[in-house]
Amino acid sequence: MTAADLAADPATEELAERVRAFVREEVVPAERDWAMTDAHPTDELRRGLQKRAADAGLLSPTGPRRWGGLGLSVPAQAVVLREAGHSLLGPLALNCAAPDEGNMHLLEKVATPEQQERYLAPLVAGVVRSCFAMTEPSPGAGSDPEMLRTTARWDGDAWVIDGTKWFITGADGAAWAICMARTPEHRGQAAGATMFLVDADNPGMRVARQIRSLDTGFTGGHCEVVFDQCRVPPEAVLGEVGRGFAYAQVRLAPARLTHCMRWLGLAERAQDMALDRAAEREAFGHRLAELGMAQQLLADSEIDLAASRSLITHAAWLLDRGERAAAETSIAKTFVSEAVGRVVDRAVQLHGALGVSGDELLSLYLREVRPFRVYDGASEVHRMSIARRAVRRRAQARTAG
Amino acid sequence: MTAADLAADPATEELAERVRAFVREEVVPAERDWAMTDAHPTDELRRGLQKRAADAGLLSPTGPRRWGGLGLSVPAQAVVLREAGHSLLGPLALNCAAPDEGNMHLLEKVATPEQQERYLAPLVAGVVRSCFAMTEPSPGAGSDPEMLRTTARWDGDAWVIDGTKWFITGADGAAWAICMARTPEHRGQAAGATMFLVDADNPGMRVARQIRSLDTGFTGGHCEVVFDQCRVPPEAVLGEVGRGFAYAQVRLAPARLTHCMRWLGLAERAQDMALDRAAEREAFGHRLAELGMAQQLLADSEIDLAASRSLITHAAWLLDRGERAAAETSIAKTFVSEAVGRVVDRAVQLHGALGVSGDELLSLYLREVRPFRVYDGASEVHRMSIARRAVRRRAQARTAG
Amino acid sequence: MTAADLAADPATEELAERVRAFVREEVVPAERDWAMTDAHPTDELRRGLQKRAADAGLLSPTGPRRWGGLGLSVPAQAVVLREAGHSLLGPLALNCAAPDEGNMHLLEKVATPEQQERYLAPLVAGVVRSCFAMTEPSPGAGSDPEMLRTTARWDGDAWVIDGTKWFITGADGAAWAICMARTPEHRGQAAGATMFLVDADNPGMRVARQIRSLDTGFTGGHCEVVFDQCRVPPEAVLGEVGRGFAYAQVRLAPARLTHCMRWLGLAERAQDMALDRAAEREAFGHRLAELGMAQQLLADSEIDLAASRSLITHAAWLLDRGERAAAETSIAKTFVSEAVGRVVDRAVQLHGALGVSGDELLSLYLREVRPFRVYDGASEVHRMSIARRAVRRRAQARTAG
Amino acid sequence: MTAADLAADPATEELAERVRAFVREEVVPAERDWAMTDAHPTDELRRGLQKRAADAGLLSPTGPRRWGGLGLSVPAQAVVLREAGHSLLGPLALNCAAPDEGNMHLLEKVATPEQQERYLAPLVAGVVRSCFAMTEPSPGAGSDPEMLRTTARWDGDAWVIDGTKWFITGADGAAWAICMARTPEHRGQAAGATMFLVDADNPGMRVARQIRSLDTGFTGGHCEVVFDQCRVPPEAVLGEVGRGFAYAQVRLAPARLTHCMRWLGLAERAQDMALDRAAEREAFGHRLAELGMAQQLLADSEIDLAASRSLITHAAWLLDRGERAAAETSIAKTFVSEAVGRVVDRAVQLHGALGVSGDELLSLYLREVRPFRVYDGASEVHRMSIARRAVRRRAQARTAG
Repeated sequence: MTAADLAADPATEELAERVRAFVREEVVPAERDWAMTDAHPTDELRRGLQKRAADAGLLSPTGPRRWGGLGLSVPAQAVVLREAGHSLLGPLALNCAAPDEGNMHLLEKVATPEQQERYLAPLVAGVVRSCFAMTEPSPGAGSDPEMLRTTARWDGDAWVIDGTKWFITGADGAAWAICMARTPEHRGQAAGATMFLVDADNPGMRVARQIRSLDTGFTGGHCEVVFDQCRVPPEAVLGEVGRGFAYAQVRLAPARLTHCMRWLGLAERAQDMALDRAAEREAFGHRLAELGMAQQLLADSEIDLAASRSLITHAAWLLDRGERAAAETSIAKTFVSEAVGRVVDRAVQLHGALGVSGDELLSLYLREVRPFRVYDGASEVHRMSIARRAVRRRAQARTAG
Repeated sequence: MTAADLAADPATEELAERVRAFVREEVVPAERDWAMTDAHPTDELRRGLQKRAADAGLLSPTGPRRWGGLGLSVPAQAVVLREAGHSLLGPLALNCAAPDEGNMHLLEKVATPEQQERYLAPLVAGVVRSCFAMTEPSPGAGSDPEMLRTTARWDGDAWVIDGTKWFITGADGAAWAICMARTPEHRGQAAGATMFLVDADNPGMRVARQIRSLDTGFTGGHCEVVFDQCRVPPEAVLGEVGRGFAYAQVRLAPARLTHCMRWLGLAERAQDMALDRAAEREAFGHRLAELGMAQQLLADSEIDLAASRSLITHAAWLLDRGERAAAETSIAKTFVSEAVGRVVDRAVQLHGALGVSGDELLSLYLREVRPFRVYDGASEVHRMSIARRAVRRRAQARTAG
Repeated sequence: MTAADLAADPATEELAERVRAFVREEVVPAERDWAMTDAHPTDELRRGLQKRAADAGLLSPTGPRRWGGLGLSVPAQAVVLREAGHSLLGPLALNCAAPDEGNMHLLEKVATPEQQERYLAPLVAGVVRSCFAMTEPSPGAGSDPEMLRTTARWDGDAWVIDGTKWFITGADGAAWAICMARTPEHRGQAAGATMFLVDADNPGMRVARQIRSLDTGFTGGHCEVVFDQCRVPPEAVLGEVGRGFAYAQVRLAPARLTHCMRWLGLAERAQDMALDRAAEREAFGHRLAELGMAQQLLADSEIDLAASRSLITHAAWLLDRGERAAAETSIAKTFVSEAVGRVVDRAVQLHGALGVSGDELLSLYLREVRPFRVYDGASEVHRMSIARRAVRRRAQARTAG
Repeated sequence: MTAADLAADPATEELAERVRAFVREEVVPAERDWAMTDAHPTDELRRGLQKRAADAGLLSPTGPRRWGGLGLSVPAQAVVLREAGHSLLGPLALNCAAPDEGNMHLLEKVATPEQQERYLAPLVAGVVRSCFAMTEPSPGAGSDPEMLRTTARWDGDAWVIDGTKWFITGADGAAWAICMARTPEHRGQAAGATMFLVDADNPGMRVARQIRSLDTGFTGGHCEVVFDQCRVPPEAVLGEVGRGFAYAQVRLAPARLTHCMRWLGLAERAQDMALDRAAEREAFGHRLAELGMAQQLLADSEIDLAASRSLITHAAWLLDRGERAAAETSIAKTFVSEAVGRVVDRAVQLHGALGVSGDELLSLYLREVRPFRVYDGASEVHRMSIARRAVRRRAQARTAG
């Protein structure tokens, strides 16, 4: 099934069209105003946009229907999140931005009914935001999650978490965090990592600071979060003790694909701007659209966008069939994150000084998309995995004859 | 529909498996012997392979059923031709190599029943080969078909063709050619280009020479063909007078996609070799498969292959729906031709001196795939078209609001 | 003569060492503080740094000796400006940043003694800043200077300038501008473009706004400047009437090379950070410095830096001999601007999330270097010139036999 | 000192001009004839060309004067070998091709006077050819020389060499080989590798076969050479026992730079062809030289060539000062080998089908230059070294403060 297939699905197509109109009419004007603020989108801005999205029946496209979301299939998400991504604020407006969107998915898969009611329901409704506290400052967990240093120990009636988390997106203002910590053997569960749901008002959890960053598109920024003798009850454990690394995978494969969908939308927006510019601007006696080097920039971006769409569609289709699709989402993430960067960069180049100025949004987009090559696994880490999987696959094929 | 979808189609999957086995058991050994000859595959070699393919029920997968082909849909072709492409001789063995495969398609779409019986039937059966005589030496038709210089004039009872064609693949030994010539206004038809079916024994048509070339994989080579006072009867006109450029498009979009399918197969073969080498060869105390730069080469090729497959699948699906898919096949051709070159080049690099030697087939593959960036429209010409189409599409979208 | 040669020149080497120490001890600490401000460097900051540079005998290395500068040769500039560039504030501190550095050169070459005393002397002394008002908003002069729209007409006893300039670096706070305007035939001088020295307190010249931009490293930012019935006396003409385009070339070739020198220094700084990171950070059981993909990033940057240095050195040597070196400076500008971007980008990638955070300066550097591919002629415009020159050179060589 | 400097050296400039004329008048016509043979240049062809070069006073530009060579400095070689490289047969004609040129250098540095008289003198005179037998088939010495498997043991009065060498350039027809073998501790010399001079008529040395290869430009091809109980007297040891790896370095750094010089010449030739084509060929109503994408290809090659020249010049200058320049020659080799491949590839692309045909020499050049990225250390191995050296250099700089 491809994007074209999905286009043939009238319900998805109709939904996509409504998202397109909503983004164009409601979100893009807000984006322009916000872009002048040099600040992260505020919760006030978020609430206003999400209210209008809810009124339009577009809130939480990936959230489970049971809790009020649209419950879209992954292929339908591929269409809708891409449309939302046409504005930097689109995913926020529709409540399908990182990290909340990934957290919804994880809670849906792993949380108990009580945890879902308490944490997932208000998240899907846009009442609260959340964060995912995994990465740590050097020499802790970064590209290599095995370097996890935050610990949780069992202390009679509660778990006590200690450690510092770093670059935790959305932590400032989040109602709760999913915190990943190393846990010892515990009641028959092997030692490993465990995920905990920690309320923001827990006195043992503290947002130490917002870290300045190249990108500014995430409400709550990227934060340093300190867990200091942070006591949480047994029911704060998400899923089972010791299975944190496995759950991280549950979250990561789809989350990296939704990242691709959203950012692909932004790249399409940048390409639209480049095409408009090429059609309008003249130099050396021709419209840019007729100058060979400009054509090359435009064509290379068309190719990058087409390949990105195709890779996302294929991986979405596999996830929808219940496959793990680790290889395919890893390939998609690596390619799309780099392609998106190239597309936005070319659009900037075609705009000349206007492209690096704040008079267009492109310089802002350039800043937003760069970290995508680092977030959710740096390109190098993905390439290592892709190569190893390919070597194994081939060895198995040879053994099979 | 994706490759994965097609995998779910049991008939196609079963066919692909049979092709895979046939290539492995019958074609690959022949390829190794042939590779030592430094010559084009002979018609004798072709006939032997095609006989075995016919015995295995695999001959002419793209040929119409009516004339004995398998009549596969374009998406099924995408699977089967890729498998065939795992050996340089695979497409020849299955009678789905260029230029015959494209000529089959064109005749199926445009030729009269009589022409089909006379020209198409023996072509599908593998009894004869054919060629497509369009490109010309400088300053004639090359990247820019509008520069066509060969002419045909009406002389009472016959057309008289004059001109020199250049780099006509398979001409030496072909039973007939489709020749493209500029024609004047004629009986109410506007001036333009016309296609003619010319028998090889026509005294006015002569293969002047085989042109030496980087690639040697095409039976009959690439030839210079001279039309000198070449008289052909009115029934030699393929389709209508003056519509040659339109028919060229009919042929080109699918033909460039089947090119992609075949060559993608070869790139997959090269990557298999690279993966085997990485698993076996050691350097600096590690298997190559564990060295970061080797992993990068392997991963980049995995990404290139995945994106190539996705783009082909998408375009095939559109063609199957009856769309013209000019943009999508153009994008696929540009990306795949460059990706295939990169994949083979990386496999060579991973093999070191062995890769450039004739002890492996990779150096041969390197030579074969390079021209793909020139054949069927150089990358630059495709990029020009891709950019122009994108600018028009965007302008229409803006007008539509 | 190469950088190595210059190293053998004891005076230059000693000067470079002093600049290195000055940047390390005085400028880098100021840079870190400034980076937290999210604002352009203020004139107060500039004056403080320049005072210390003057005390250290390092002010205005490119300024003519007659007016208090160090009067370095171009090859010596290549060494010293590169060292200065190791901090974003280094060129500002030494008073060899754009646009003042280019204006010094232009005034030295073209201005009358009176103009030099009035405009050049205080510029070299760091008493004032200046700007160069050439580019215009679309559809005016941008990549294609021939599209100049600002006009100056002779009105009895004065020139009257009308037009809007755009992205004029440093205009806000500059004491004067060099304004480029189209002029009609005038007293025997052909129609063309003319440069005018305009004082900032001229009531006809107005800084309309600072334009937001991806980069923030220039004092005074990039501004929109309006000339509205701006009257200037005949002695405001810089050089001769009608020769503005020629003078622009006088300024551009050396100015684009000094750009390369400064930005190359910044890229070297980024590479130093990357090397430090690789030596310290561990992942997957190894220091990054021992991981193949990290080595590839580091090695590619070493190669980019070495090639950049070599190209700059060669062009500097030619300029020093009095050659115009238009081809060589154009090639250097194109390569270095792109190489610098790659080097900084790789350093960011090696730092992961730290690289895109504000905890390191790399994300700031990434923003600063991107516009270099647009400023002083976009890469595409340079490539057009480079290709045309090469075609002419070859045609002449063939004619010569 | 740059190429420009050297241009100012009248003797070198005059010599370069004579080489240019010799290549144009004597070598290029021979190259065209040879290109039609699909075979390696024969010794007969070599002798004919070398005789004419000797008559013109151009033989053996890198050979020591004492033995009849021109004894050029490395910077002068950079000019002269580049000119020779303008034809594939140029270095052969001037007797400065690999592997003889590198062997001359090694013997000059390490061999005894007796060895020089016996081996070096006839080599410089062009009376004989030689080969350098180091690399081995997998799992022996390849990218990683430490994997050396060939052994030599002391047997009373002689060394006995056993092992198989692979891809030994020029072995077929060589008068002698320098063979690298692993040696045990011997008379106080530590165990290690030792180089031996082995006469081709030694019954223990046998050229097993010429290995088919992508390139065909080396007389004698690339061979498999078997040493089977090969006895050589003590005076066959080149230099000292156990120092083979060190001598390999003595040979490699300059040899990889002369490789760069020769291949750069070939790339310049390819670019000349591309410029000619762009000036002559029309498409889409314009000369290629005026089409943006063609300009981009041409400009990118101009940049690659300029950077290659600059890097070679810089490294040559360092070698001339007596520095080891391991980092600089490694950087030059990596960049130039890749740049040369790009330049030739772009020239092919600009020629379209003509470029891949044998009607131009470009397709032959494409085959010849590809292995350069593998020979004398694959790019990946060089990058590993470059990165490690850079990390060490930086660590030392930090320690130094």
